[in-house]
Amino acid sequence: MKGFMDENFLLDTETSRRLFFGCAKDMPIFDWHCHLSPAEIYENRQPADIAELWLGGDHYKWRAMRSCGVEEKYITGNASNYEKFKAWAEVLPYCIGNPLYHWTHLELQRYFDIYEPLSAATCDAIWEKANAKIAAGGFTPRELIISSGVKCVCTTDDAADSLEYHRLLREDKSFGCKVLPAFRPDKALNIDQDTFLPWLASLEKVSGEKIDSYKKLISVLRARIDFFAENGCRASDHAFMYVPFNRAGEDELEAIFEKALSGGKLIADEANKYRTELFRFFAGEYAKRGWGMEIHIGAMRNNNAAMFKKIGADTGFDSICDRSIAEPLSAMLDSLASDGRLPKTILFALNPKDNYVLGSMLGNFQNSETASKLQFGSAWWFNDNIDGMREQLKALANLGVLGKFVGMVTDSRSFLSYPRHEYFRRILCGLIGGWVEDGLYPYTPELEDIIRDISYNNAVNYFGI
Amino acid sequence: MKGFMDENFLLDTETSRRLFFGCAKDMPIFDWHCHLSPAEIYENRQPADIAELWLGGDHYKWRAMRSCGVEEKYITGNASNYEKFKAWAEVLPYCIGNPLYHWTHLELQRYFDIYEPLSAATCDAIWEKANAKIAAGGFTPRELIISSGVKCVCTTDDAADSLEYHRLLREDKSFGCKVLPAFRPDKALNIDQDTFLPWLASLEKVSGEKIDSYKKLISVLRARIDFFAENGCRASDHAFMYVPFNRAGEDELEAIFEKALSGGKLIADEANKYRTELFRFFAGEYAKRGWGMEIHIGAMRNNNAAMFKKIGADTGFDSICDRSIAEPLSAMLDSLASDGRLPKTILFALNPKDNYVLGSMLGNFQNSETASKLQFGSAWWFNDNIDGMREQLKALANLGVLGKFVGMVTDSRSFLSYPRHEYFRRILCGLIGGWVEDGLYPYTPELEDIIRDISYNNAVNYFGI
Amino acid sequence: MKGFMDENFLLDTETSRRLFFGCAKDMPIFDWHCHLSPAEIYENRQPADIAELWLGGDHYKWRAMRSCGVEEKYITGNASNYEKFKAWAEVLPYCIGNPLYHWTHLELQRYFDIYEPLSAATCDAIWEKANAKIAAGGFTPRELIISSGVKCVCTTDDAADSLEYHRLLREDKSFGCKVLPAFRPDKALNIDQDTFLPWLASLEKVSGEKIDSYKKLISVLRARIDFFAENGCRASDHAFMYVPFNRAGEDELEAIFEKALSGGKLIADEANKYRTELFRFFAGEYAKRGWGMEIHIGAMRNNNAAMFKKIGADTGFDSICDRSIAEPLSAMLDSLASDGRLPKTILFALNPKDNYVLGSMLGNFQNSETASKLQFGSAWWFNDNIDGMREQLKALANLGVLGKFVGMVTDSRSFLSYPRHEYFRRILCGLIGGWVEDGLYPYTPELEDIIRDISYNNAVNYFGI
Repeated sequence: MKGFMDENFLLDTETSRRLFFGCAKDMPIFDWHCHLSPAEIYENRQPADIAELWLGGDHYKWRAMRSCGVEEKYITGNASNYEKFKAWAEVLPYCIGNPLYHWTHLELQRYFDIYEPLSAATCDAIWEKANAKIAAGGFTPRELIISSGVKCVCTTDDAADSLEYHRLLREDKSFGCKVLPAFRPDKALNIDQDTFLPWLASLEKVSGEKIDSYKKLISVLRARIDFFAENGCRASDHAFMYVPFNRAGEDELEAIFEKALSGGKLIADEANKYRTELFRFFAGEYAKRGWGMEIHIGAMRNNNAAMFKKIGADTGFDSICDRSIAEPLSAMLDSLASDGRLPKTILFALNPKDNYVLGSMLGNFQNSETASKLQFGSAWWFNDNIDGMREQLKALANLGVLGKFVGMVTDSRSFLSYPRHEYFRRILCGLIGGWVEDGLYPYTPELEDIIRDISYNNAVNYFGI
Repeated sequence: MKGFMDENFLLDTETSRRLFFGCAKDMPIFDWHCHLSPAEIYENRQPADIAELWLGGDHYKWRAMRSCGVEEKYITGNASNYEKFKAWAEVLPYCIGNPLYHWTHLELQRYFDIYEPLSAATCDAIWEKANAKIAAGGFTPRELIISSGVKCVCTTDDAADSLEYHRLLREDKSFGCKVLPAFRPDKALNIDQDTFLPWLASLEKVSGEKIDSYKKLISVLRARIDFFAENGCRASDHAFMYVPFNRAGEDELEAIFEKALSGGKLIADEANKYRTELFRFFAGEYAKRGWGMEIHIGAMRNNNAAMFKKIGADTGFDSICDRSIAEPLSAMLDSLASDGRLPKTILFALNPKDNYVLGSMLGNFQNSETASKLQFGSAWWFNDNIDGMREQLKALANLGVLGKFVGMVTDSRSFLSYPRHEYFRRILCGLIGGWVEDGLYPYTPELEDIIRDISYNNAVNYFGI
Repeated sequence: MKGFMDENFLLDTETSRRLFFGCAKDMPIFDWHCHLSPAEIYENRQPADIAELWLGGDHYKWRAMRSCGVEEKYITGNASNYEKFKAWAEVLPYCIGNPLYHWTHLELQRYFDIYEPLSAATCDAIWEKANAKIAAGGFTPRELIISSGVKCVCTTDDAADSLEYHRLLREDKSFGCKVLPAFRPDKALNIDQDTFLPWLASLEKVSGEKIDSYKKLISVLRARIDFFAENGCRASDHAFMYVPFNRAGEDELEAIFEKALSGGKLIADEANKYRTELFRFFAGEYAKRGWGMEIHIGAMRNNNAAMFKKIGADTGFDSICDRSIAEPLSAMLDSLASDGRLPKTILFALNPKDNYVLGSMLGNFQNSETASKLQFGSAWWFNDNIDGMREQLKALANLGVLGKFVGMVTDSRSFLSYPRHEYFRRILCGLIGGWVEDGLYPYTPELEDIIRDISYNNAVNYFGI
């Protein structure tokens, strides 16, 4: 029986420990997809307490608290930070088997030197000890990033973003981590949502251009992409509830755009045609610039209308969609490949039923431009747990080439989330170490390189940072 | 190597044994969803032999026998009870890895003190020994329920049921197990099936009302729900091949109802509109009364038309549907939540591809009314096996809060099926014991409570019995 | 720690070794579905080198090479055989966890007595040693088949095939393996593809008949089925991207056929009606003759249009479809059963999400004609790996009767692929041996028979060879 989350956590064999401690543990981190705020990194403020760090914006924890019947007052309401922390401490033991349980304790161990399980019984002692640690220093955003071994992060930025803080950060030579923007034009694509016209106004503002046609939109967006490229961007990101593929010609696109501009309600078909063609434009621009294109498929957002009205998006009311995706995705990728517009592409599945569809789709479009030009993104959001990561790794291994995998990202809003890379590396070494001990793969120098590559090198080479 | 189904069956670690024997084993049983006949419980007849108990109505076994090429004569035909038992004994060894193999032997061990594997070779000896045991007593429905430690069962009852036997059972103070009705109005919702008009006639009869409009139907059904509530009902149950969500107004509903009344053939859209709105009515009524609402999603029934014509429903010709369910389910739950009509709800998936959809859907509608107001029902029917139960437990743990789970139900027609609760508890303790030994969760007093809660207490609190 | 792919490869328990070495290992092979060329078997030429054997037609390896960024020149281009072998050797270590890694080394061990891992470092030594072995003899198609213990293979043959080589092989009494044709009329069914009219011309040629109506087509195809039967055919095979079920009458079918004949572009609905009814015809003919009907569901082929144009079909650009299949499949099987046209049927899933749909569908149509008349085909193509095989075996065990399973096929184009049967048998014995050691099943003589049956006997009995 192993100790609770001890140094051999998730490492069940001698070989897995050798791989983790010898190869994975000390590799730097390149977190090429996250939701950190560049403003917060730049401003680098001292946090008030552990509740602010943990519960200020983490809708994963909010969901778990609601699932235990905690009142909203203690979640997003006006209870004190201590009360919120206490509510979380009381809930946590019931989250047995949930990644939140492990993340919480990994963060307590790595950043706070606290090794007891958090519960109602230990709540007060941990609250005191953690807050004393925070007060003693080392917990500003930049300090956490550096002490976590992070060499580069890619944030997630709207196409109309000024990138002001990225520019300021680049000028500050004292900070040893690159903070690059990533281009996420979801609001440009979601022409059928309430966010579209306000977003268009913000794009007009940042560009200084009147956008009165689809053609004009394209030219302004191309300039934005250039602007992102000038600011070090190497990646884009797209979120699709389902993959669109409805081709349309220019006249039709202009008519759809005009209808949206004049406040008309688009039918699903119109929105999808627009989305298809605008996405095709984006992909072609990324391909020209050698960017990596991330596609996150299958999130169904804001399912609870009353709570959305009350507290907005990204508050814990999202779940997994289950449409069929293989045919439109194949058609889309083929149309891009046929036109020479297919960039390096990373496909993420939110629904684990899609693991084998994505894992096999990759192979249709691989070529000699890059090793594994098409990638199967690491287990994401609802799959970002031990089972989900093992399934993604096994699906990729069975269907593609695991040795060329670009690996883990935190996808997080928290400066304390870097132990998720450690969690991933332990799972990776646990899985592969088990294979070696079972005689399924020999222990070779190549094996050690593969561990280092998946931990860090493959992503660096793929994105070219 | 462990002995065949010995006392440590499914308990591979010291901790799993400690949890099972120390916490789970002796908890009572609350079987909140089953298909037992209240009439049979009331009448409490002595069974003739083990064939009657095992093969009289168990279409799981019938399917296995057909899959081995056994003639229908020995399954539902006029062969003798001994011949049927012999056919089952010959088939069983081929069912390696099937839950029927384990259920059969758990039942032989727990009720008959028989520890040999059943096969052609042991058939006659087991037939003799089991029947002698039955003849010696302890095998009537009520004796089996009490000796199995069952404190309460919820049966499954049509909306037009008189609940006569539930009333008689309630009056009999000598029986130490509550037998509560559960409201299952599938025939009310299935307006497009041949069963609808006959069912409507039975509803008119039991209510003494002429039902000539949708409005009238609603008022009669509301009275039925009151009647069920008076008789101790705490739960409803719905079976949907797929989740409907097509809103309609009152005039449209009246027109659809009139069309059905006059024998017209409804199109799919009409039936779904009716189903959507009638279900919304039901949910609201359950919410008012604090009932738990069970939704069983994905059974595709009576796939073999010739056999259906010959021997009717529930005879082993059902399988798993695979439509996409996330979008209509989200829309339905949101429409209920928005109108204050969302009751405590338990979602069951027949297709394991839906585990992550349901597991993530829950979180969208949790609140402080109850701990885990939305529940992910235990592995059901085709998933009611070791793999299916582990997958359901892991999905719930990864996506929600396992510690608040309402746990197992037999969903059975047999008075010998209570060892399925033991099977579940062994799997639960096996899984969690493994986590503890792997250092993924600490052994704490909270852990022991969680095991007791999932075994029994959570369900008692959730349904308020 | 076990040695790399040693004699106990995949056999982790004493019982698994006892079952494999005692029961499975020495059973003959009946490979009832493969893509071997009867002409190549007949001509029995000496291969030039290991590159020809391994890389001449294996699009699985081609995909892996493309996924590592290898240039097409070294895959399907004009590089030398040595250069291609070297490219493969360099890529292989990155394929950690992929079945290609295990197949490659199983083949090196079993046919070449080479036990070192193949990599860039060992490439030249292995190239020399393997080619010397080949030159020394034993590597012609017939020698490989016989030395692999193969008693019978069923090839895959177009409905218009002359079966010339099957006839020649049958006359050659010196060859100790039966080579039977299997009837695969995909081109007849794919009326909406470019291949249809050329195929029809080839059918006219082989039959000497003018086919100017659907009725005529049926009569010619019936004669072809008779011809296949005369040549020893016991199996048919169908590949469906999705299962069609749209009924149509004769007039409609004639109109659709005429439209296709005259070069008209069919809409999806027309093609599906034709496919539905022609497939129903085929099934009925198979049923009359006692053939087994294989249905391979879910391959989405030729996803990369540019590469298809360049190098054609079956070159590594296929992946997994994800439509819903349960409802049309149920309707199709029921329509066949109702008309007495349902033959012995083997359903293969390419998408693992369909495992539970197929596994439960079988049970709807089992009867006493044959033990497990409906079969769940072994893990296929993208699932033909350790995880996929375990999942298929577990799904079948949980939902049906594993003991009656017809087992493994290579589905291969390579004469070196027979170790895939060994791979399957090791996985089978590993899984079942684990169950026995865990106390889930007793070690009995029946168990040993089940292993032998799944390895060979069940398939022999099922197909009646």
